[in-house]
Amino acid sequence: MMVEITRNNFEEKYPEIEGRLRSAVFVAVDTEFTGLLSDPAFKPSLFDTGSERYGKLRRSTEHFLIMQVGITAFRFIEDKNKYKASKYTFYVFPRSFASIDNIFMCQSSSLEFLCQNHFDFNKFVYDGVPYLNQKEEAHLRKELSKGSLFHQLDRTVDLDDEKSIQLVCSRVAKWAASAVQGDTLDLNNLDICQGDIRLSYVMHKELRQRFPDIWSFPEGGLIRVKKISHMQRKALEENEEQHKTLEETVMHSLLGFSRLFKLLTELKKPIVGHNILLDLMIMYNQFHEQLPTRLNDFKEEIHRLFPVIYDTKFLSFQMRKILIKEDMWNSNILSHLYCFFKEGRGRYLVLYSPIIELEDGAEICNPKETASNVSEQSQDLNVKFHEAGWDSYCTGYCFIRMAHIFAHVTCGSLVFGRILTSREHLLGVSSKKNCVNVIRANISHMCLDGPDPPSDRPNWLHVQAKGFRTIDVSKVAELFARYGSVDVKPFTRFRALVAVGNHGSAKDIVRQFQKHKELRVSYYHPLWHSSVFQTFLGTGAVVSCGMCAYFLYRQFSNIQTPSARSVP
Amino acid sequence: MMVEITRNNFEEKYPEIEGRLRSAVFVAVDTEFTGLLSDPAFKPSLFDTGSERYGKLRRSTEHFLIMQVGITAFRFIEDKNKYKASKYTFYVFPRSFASIDNIFMCQSSSLEFLCQNHFDFNKFVYDGVPYLNQKEEAHLRKELSKGSLFHQLDRTVDLDDEKSIQLVCSRVAKWAASAVQGDTLDLNNLDICQGDIRLSYVMHKELRQRFPDIWSFPEGGLIRVKKISHMQRKALEENEEQHKTLEETVMHSLLGFSRLFKLLTELKKPIVGHNILLDLMIMYNQFHEQLPTRLNDFKEEIHRLFPVIYDTKFLSFQMRKILIKEDMWNSNILSHLYCFFKEGRGRYLVLYSPIIELEDGAEICNPKETASNVSEQSQDLNVKFHEAGWDSYCTGYCFIRMAHIFAHVTCGSLVFGRILTSREHLLGVSSKKNCVNVIRANISHMCLDGPDPPSDRPNWLHVQAKGFRTIDVSKVAELFARYGSVDVKPFTRFRALVAVGNHGSAKDIVRQFQKHKELRVSYYHPLWHSSVFQTFLGTGAVVSCGMCAYFLYRQFSNIQTPSARSVP
Repeated sequence: MMVEITRNNFEEKYPEIEGRLRSAVFVAVDTEFTGLLSDPAFKPSLFDTGSERYGKLRRSTEHFLIMQVGITAFRFIEDKNKYKASKYTFYVFPRSFASIDNIFMCQSSSLEFLCQNHFDFNKFVYDGVPYLNQKEEAHLRKELSKGSLFHQLDRTVDLDDEKSIQLVCSRVAKWAASAVQGDTLDLNNLDICQGDIRLSYVMHKELRQRFPDIWSFPEGGLIRVKKISHMQRKALEENEEQHKTLEETVMHSLLGFSRLFKLLTELKKPIVGHNILLDLMIMYNQFHEQLPTRLNDFKEEIHRLFPVIYDTKFLSFQMRKILIKEDMWNSNILSHLYCFFKEGRGRYLVLYSPIIELEDGAEICNPKETASNVSEQSQDLNVKFHEAGWDSYCTGYCFIRMAHIFAHVTCGSLVFGRILTSREHLLGVSSKKNCVNVIRANISHMCLDGPDPPSDRPNWLHVQAKGFRTIDVSKVAELFARYGSVDVKPFTRFRALVAVGNHGSAKDIVRQFQKHKELRVSYYHPLWHSSVFQTFLGTGAVVSCGMCAYFLYRQFSNIQTPSARSVP
Repeated sequence: MMVEITRNNFEEKYPEIEGRLRSAVFVAVDTEFTGLLSDPAFKPSLFDTGSERYGKLRRSTEHFLIMQVGITAFRFIEDKNKYKASKYTFYVFPRSFASIDNIFMCQSSSLEFLCQNHFDFNKFVYDGVPYLNQKEEAHLRKELSKGSLFHQLDRTVDLDDEKSIQLVCSRVAKWAASAVQGDTLDLNNLDICQGDIRLSYVMHKELRQRFPDIWSFPEGGLIRVKKISHMQRKALEENEEQHKTLEETVMHSLLGFSRLFKLLTELKKPIVGHNILLDLMIMYNQFHEQLPTRLNDFKEEIHRLFPVIYDTKFLSFQMRKILIKEDMWNSNILSHLYCFFKEGRGRYLVLYSPIIELEDGAEICNPKETASNVSEQSQDLNVKFHEAGWDSYCTGYCFIRMAHIFAHVTCGSLVFGRILTSREHLLGVSSKKNCVNVIRANISHMCLDGPDPPSDRPNWLHVQAKGFRTIDVSKVAELFARYGSVDVKPFTRFRALVAVGNHGSAKDIVRQFQKHKELRVSYYHPLWHSSVFQTFLGTGAVVSCGMCAYFLYRQFSNIQTPSARSVP
């Protein structure tokens, strides 16, 4: 059974979800969103530092929205060596209310991608749980305290809503005619207002205004109408004046998913995600506050909100380093990783790897027992990937498997041959906490609780077109691409800089292009290749100096090759 | 039966739709879109000139999208005095393809509004008909002629698509093993590629590349594979090289709804809409080209595309002028107008008003025959409003009823007491062609085929806070609002200008505020109220000159009141 949370069951499910989160060892998350700017200006490049990448991501996501959040809480049952997973898929939608009316962007290809994964856009718009970021919350609270909210909303009530209000009022009038003080009438809020917070608010206000001898109470899913005395009414009005109980109820509903986000930040449980940086940033922007301009400010605040974060993509790269080749998976894509740990060798690498079960066990059955054809089974699973709840579950699944292996590596004989505790699992990966993967950049990962690590990419390459011809950057990129991933940027009219993904590729390129007839390739040296120095060489007697420089240069680069590793 | 057009039936239905449009007397249109910027900067105001309003609308719509287009073609059957209506609701979605990847905006309140009208967002994203504007078309044709399209697309093929391609290839391999030259194998394109134009294109390319003794032909909904000789293959390859048949087929599919839009511009049939300006602008932007900056350029081009345009909202305001009060409708909202003409007095105002029937007659039955309770019937109808096809039908319906009445007014005894021709109907409204309604502006309507009409709004009011107090613009707006619609803008720190909706309200305000203790109100006079003149008054001896000016002013404004009508 898949638990989808919409505005129709959010309030009802909230206590259960809260309980599951409170008893969790860690919480895995995943999000699906409406798009990502793909301009060349925002494209990830091997030149990017942490700050640059953060800036690109911030600007390319700020107007897009998360439509679906997957949250899976994993609790540990020690005597059974078992993790129980409670998986929830939340649809969230920025409900308009009073002066709050969100405008957001969508990207065709992103929506089409979600179509391939059977995303339900109607559920997003019709049933998405509301939320407010802190700025919106503060703004609404201010409007609310001014008391002008009702007048504002009253003007936006349409014909259908007007009819609903009339209907309810005449029902109450009929009841009130024969009711005595203390009698109550319960109206089903969900039936009448169909989850429309605005309508529910106007309904309360209208009832209180029209009937001086009743009071309306928001009671969970009910509007409870009570016949009262003049004195009681006066007291209730004064109380309302002071405490704005009705307005608080409205705020509570409108905060919706933000309350859950806030709960997560209060619980301080470890948060686990796969390639989690983007999810973190976009959640921060949507449910907390606008992303700060500077990376360090973001790090500080995200660390305050979530002191312990794990990225399974980062962990998987770390694990590659300790596994022998036959025990390795093919790619770090979540679905491949999950299949490796679920069905492949990954599960049996180390003894006593815990059992992992979804709370409603029926969903995931043991492939060994039910299906003879493993690849068919994977195909079935494939269908569910990119459903946020499922992805968060798989992420948590891989996290446990990897933590179990890491625990054995770090603790060695201390843990060998016995069942581990969840504390030992977390201890096993604790040296990797707050390291999040960064794709195709100057750094391989970012540290959320401190400065970023030094780059371990090879030094940049410097490429010059021979004979003072204008350099063709895309041609260089094409020529070099066969040796591995590269990014090329123009340096001057005749020269370009190349960032190369790994040391092997860089070495290959330098070696292969040693005698190339059009290009001169070497490791980049900031001083030697500075434009002042080059201009000096260039403006003198071109040929002789050029030749002279060429030889000097060759020699220099030969010396430099084996040792130049640090990135300027 | 409601005819919804999606990418699954667009090609199949196209010939029928084209036929209906060709035989139409006029075509009614309506659109539903993803939002509208509501910043104060874009809010319609009574100060707005035509150019200013165009600018506001242009900037507030440019990033939003039409999701649904309603088109109803009305043809006339003279001997039966009957209009037959063919109503179509198109879902359109900007499919991504190669480097084309649209990013668009959505507004929460707009999507919520569409929810109230049961809009199907899944149909929009999953099944929307593709389209390209002229710039995108040119761009794709260029990419296509370079021949790099396949390589680009090949890289974006995902795992599922890869599987489909493998499956088809092994099916073809099996068939090819035993087939002889001239044999054909028909593959159902819709089954295999599920309307994915990109996949279909890659499939053709892949088949031709893998099998040197076959050729693939795009034949409607089929991929027809034919076994051929070496010579034939060579000829086909050369032909493809020259004519890019496959690429043309792809372009044809991608153009989708734009082809229909182009057809409409070629047919030059009168286009009818209700409050059509926004629909025209957003269609222009989405299916034709980016909206020009200047209003006059827009007018010129839209007039070239659609030489005859009618706005039923404009017509309804004109009609109010000739009807006696009891024959009038309550509001100019489309649904009210439709009910007035369908069920109310509107239908029987003039004899021989034509019968109007939907092509699939079952849908709209005569309320007199089937339902005893008229208001219930309207309630049912209400549910369908804001479905673009239905709205376009209602717009056309009202157009015919009004044209029939106008024909009697303009032609008088010439047409009295007999059935009219459709030409006479159009003749009846011809003096109102290309006039489109403009809400809450300095002008009541815009002329698409010439300069805008002079304003018939009252002269602006000039308001000054007495005793040199800072003027509170929103307080002024609140005070004046009870007399009718007003817009207030600050003029200087102490003064404000007010645009008033109608002459009666303006007169009332000036009269009522003659002795107001805080505000001095008069009709605005550009020279008298110019800041130079006022500065001169203000900077001299404040009290005496102020007093003197005050009396002068009072006198002046009294003289000016009855005659000042033209807007500066």
